[in-house]
Amino acid sequence: MVDAFRRIGVTRVRSDAGAAATDRVATEEPLEIRLHGRPFAVIMRTPGADRELAAGFLLSERVIAGAADLGAIEFCTHRSGPTSLPMRAENIVNVTLAGNAAARLDRIIGERRKVTTHSSCGLCGRLTIDSLRAEAPPLDSRWTVGSQVLTSLPDRLRASQSVFDETGGLHAAGLFTADGTLETAAEDVGRHNAVDKVVGRMLIRQQLPLSSFLLFVSGRTSFEIVQKAFLAGLSIVGAVSAPSTLAIDLARETGVTLLGFVRGGGFNIYAHGHRVALEAQPVSSQVN
Amino acid sequence: MVDAFRRIGVTRVRSDAGAAATDRVATEEPLEIRLHGRPFAVIMRTPGADRELAAGFLLSERVIAGAADLGAIEFCTHRSGPTSLPMRAENIVNVTLAGNAAARLDRIIGERRKVTTHSSCGLCGRLTIDSLRAEAPPLDSRWTVGSQVLTSLPDRLRASQSVFDETGGLHAAGLFTADGTLETAAEDVGRHNAVDKVVGRMLIRQQLPLSSFLLFVSGRTSFEIVQKAFLAGLSIVGAVSAPSTLAIDLARETGVTLLGFVRGGGFNIYAHGHRVALEAQPVSSQVN
Repeated sequence: MVDAFRRIGVTRVRSDAGAAATDRVATEEPLEIRLHGRPFAVIMRTPGADRELAAGFLLSERVIAGAADLGAIEFCTHRSGPTSLPMRAENIVNVTLAGNAAARLDRIIGERRKVTTHSSCGLCGRLTIDSLRAEAPPLDSRWTVGSQVLTSLPDRLRASQSVFDETGGLHAAGLFTADGTLETAAEDVGRHNAVDKVVGRMLIRQQLPLSSFLLFVSGRTSFEIVQKAFLAGLSIVGAVSAPSTLAIDLARETGVTLLGFVRGGGFNIYAHGHRVALEAQPVSSQVN
Repeated sequence: MVDAFRRIGVTRVRSDAGAAATDRVATEEPLEIRLHGRPFAVIMRTPGADRELAAGFLLSERVIAGAADLGAIEFCTHRSGPTSLPMRAENIVNVTLAGNAAARLDRIIGERRKVTTHSSCGLCGRLTIDSLRAEAPPLDSRWTVGSQVLTSLPDRLRASQSVFDETGGLHAAGLFTADGTLETAAEDVGRHNAVDKVVGRMLIRQQLPLSSFLLFVSGRTSFEIVQKAFLAGLSIVGAVSAPSTLAIDLARETGVTLLGFVRGGGFNIYAHGHRVALEAQPVSSQVN
């Protein structure tokens, strides 16, 4: 089984100094759920309790109504089958339905294909990195951002959040320039939506690629956040909280600078730290 | 346009007293994105910047590569069209593609239908409440949970999180009994997955419906979290952070007790507070 976390080398920046360190990062991997060998869904998840995840997911999707509808849940032992994704065998579970659900199998798979749903999962994960590279604009790697600017971003983003102060319930995403000026920000119950809103606003203004901005998000960084940034031409992504393993993999392979735990005056560099300029703390102009 | 938040009456519990209050809650509503009038995707989002969201989403999904592929993005002025969901007009945007994307329209829609994706959006939102009621087990409303037990849940859930301590990057969900005993817990980069894992584990153990447990989750409560709980027979859902409007609507209409901001010794009751027993603080047994 894949571990629930991986040890990853990072640069830990505190005040004006960076030090090499090892960080433990939550694993994000795709899980393909098959019904009687036929592809049904792909979920980005942390490995562990995969059979339980498949059972609960099928209940939530109302494919099964209870244990009586469930036959076996087994990891695939080889890759054969109609999937087009070169998934690893430990990331595929095959579910055999029983009872009423088994009788409805064809209808379940047929209906699934008719429903157009929002995939917030990045689907085939690292397997799409090559195709992403082919479609994305080349990254502009010439600019840098200062560490003092980076540590100021949580406060700057929070200051832009009008609804969060009211509700405490919203994620935010903001585009900033190298000197920390906010270009535009958006809020949403969904992190991914907040990113789509700021990128979409700039797209409508015909300002893509966003090579002169950095993206800063509240919360965590998933594979899909980095994917969205990369497709928009962004070369620096920062977040208040932790990245997933797949977000780091994608950033490292595509050249995106990825920063996490940007809070409390410091941050961690997970990928391509050459765009971060370490600055000394400004000398206080007045000492009493 | 729908507001980004709604004022909702709640009961605010601090120590052993509850008081009526008004809370501002982030709005969660479905947005249907159509391409040339044909349904393409439904996203649960906070209203506001909807055209921008549609543009950014289509870029992330690689339907468009930039502004040159984008014609008009317009709110639907009436409901006609092939959607099967009775969506409100302000929750539907129609996108006209241009350039290369327009030429690929049939292929884009055709490919979309072939990809099986994980919907983490609850799809048609409040419109499915009636169908949920028909499929879910009846809620057991006889038991209550004490306020002291509730305020202890964040620490109890955190104590169960082995990977979070390592990574700081995981959501957790736990099932607890009325006296605060943890039955089972799971962690995942996705909140919804953590809930599916605990529910799926109990399903495999043939212990559904989960009428004698309460579900407690880290983070926020979306429509889909309440939906998953309701389908599993859970009658009490608590969370460390805020619920969305649609989560509250669903809880109120289905009879689920919904608690939010369970932290710092207090919590808010958003729906069906009759299952919460207010308890006096235990008298300290030793005073120095």
